[in-house]
Amino acid sequence: MQQWSETLEITTRGQGLYEFTPELGRFMASSRIRDGLLTIYCRHTSCSLLIQENADPDVQADLKTFFSRLVPRNMDWITHTTEGPDDMPAHIKAALTQTSVCIPVNDGRPALGTWQGLYLFEHRDAPHRRQVVLHVLGEE
Amino acid sequence: MQQWSETLEITTRGQGLYEFTPELGRFMASSRIRDGLLTIYCRHTSCSLLIQENADPDVQADLKTFFSRLVPRNMDWITHTTEGPDDMPAHIKAALTQTSVCIPVNDGRPALGTWQGLYLFEHRDAPHRRQVVLHVLGEE
Amino acid sequence: MQQWSETLEITTRGQGLYEFTPELGRFMASSRIRDGLLTIYCRHTSCSLLIQENADPDVQADLKTFFSRLVPRNMDWITHTTEGPDDMPAHIKAALTQTSVCIPVNDGRPALGTWQGLYLFEHRDAPHRRQVVLHVLGEE
Repeated sequence: MQQWSETLEITTRGQGLYEFTPELGRFMASSRIRDGLLTIYCRHTSCSLLIQENADPDVQADLKTFFSRLVPRNMDWITHTTEGPDDMPAHIKAALTQTSVCIPVNDGRPALGTWQGLYLFEHRDAPHRRQVVLHVLGEE
Repeated sequence: MQQWSETLEITTRGQGLYEFTPELGRFMASSRIRDGLLTIYCRHTSCSLLIQENADPDVQADLKTFFSRLVPRNMDWITHTTEGPDDMPAHIKAALTQTSVCIPVNDGRPALGTWQGLYLFEHRDAPHRRQVVLHVLGEE
Repeated sequence: MQQWSETLEITTRGQGLYEFTPELGRFMASSRIRDGLLTIYCRHTSCSLLIQENADPDVQADLKTFFSRLVPRNMDWITHTTEGPDDMPAHIKAALTQTSVCIPVNDGRPALGTWQGLYLFEHRDAPHRRQVVLHVLGEE
């Protein structure tokens, strides 16, 4: 049993979904692990992970809209306001989605379905450099 | 350290929760792994996974109702409409729940609590055949 | 490859976030595993897990408020009412957050970001003793 790990940096330019499915493929190739378990971990509390459809970009736009309507920036009961009007909504959106995702690996490929892509979901307005840890454990 | 993997097919007949806790027991028995980590992975973006109470079926009905009220099918701002009025709400409900779940395994059994059951949460109206990957890594 | 597991008991006194990040450090030290994968698993369906900011306590208060507004206890369509008015909302809040979280481990430390803390999110009013399973798999 072997393991391999890498930290991926993703640059974001405001709220929205940033796909990094191709980076998973590159990571898997460099790990040389053929069968095992892939973990993706987001090291932040104001962005998160999402596995979603990567066929029609409208899906990603609608997801962003839904979360902005469910968690608007003008909720008057919010007490954590020191980091700007988009910060507390960002923490809430992160709580409603994922910080870690695990995907079984078979024959060198993560078991993603046909339409599944992996996204960093940025919830802040300002550009950020985000860190996502990739880790795989298994057999070569 | 050993690993074992299998793809489970689950047939759904419209929106709702479909329990597959017994299948986990069968899978664990065939793997012969006694201590390790079990991963359950859903290969779709319009259904998802949920660990929930399996004692009172009313809980499952109420969960379905809550998500249908939170994400109704008549949201007029939706742009992704080509696959029917239940499709984009399905993607959103999947984003709000789980695509992967990991459960430690002890003495051949997943560490589920007394009332916990594992469910596929179908978000589409039409019948579907869904694929869930089961993977376990550990010691016999 | 080694593994190590432990069940953590967390006593809660009503709804809110209970941090147990320090317990992860103690668990990792006793496991002696330096590189691998840490899994945290919640054995309940009316409390859940959350990775969130542990700098400003207002964030935790606002998270609790948001979920209580999104899933209030007076929803008149609820059918599962036998366990009290806070029970079905608790199941729904658990469904919207996490039951399991996986964190890669590097040099003996979980790859938590600077501001990330791990919380048990209690959704019931009454005090409870909750069980969280910690499991790590990797190399010493």
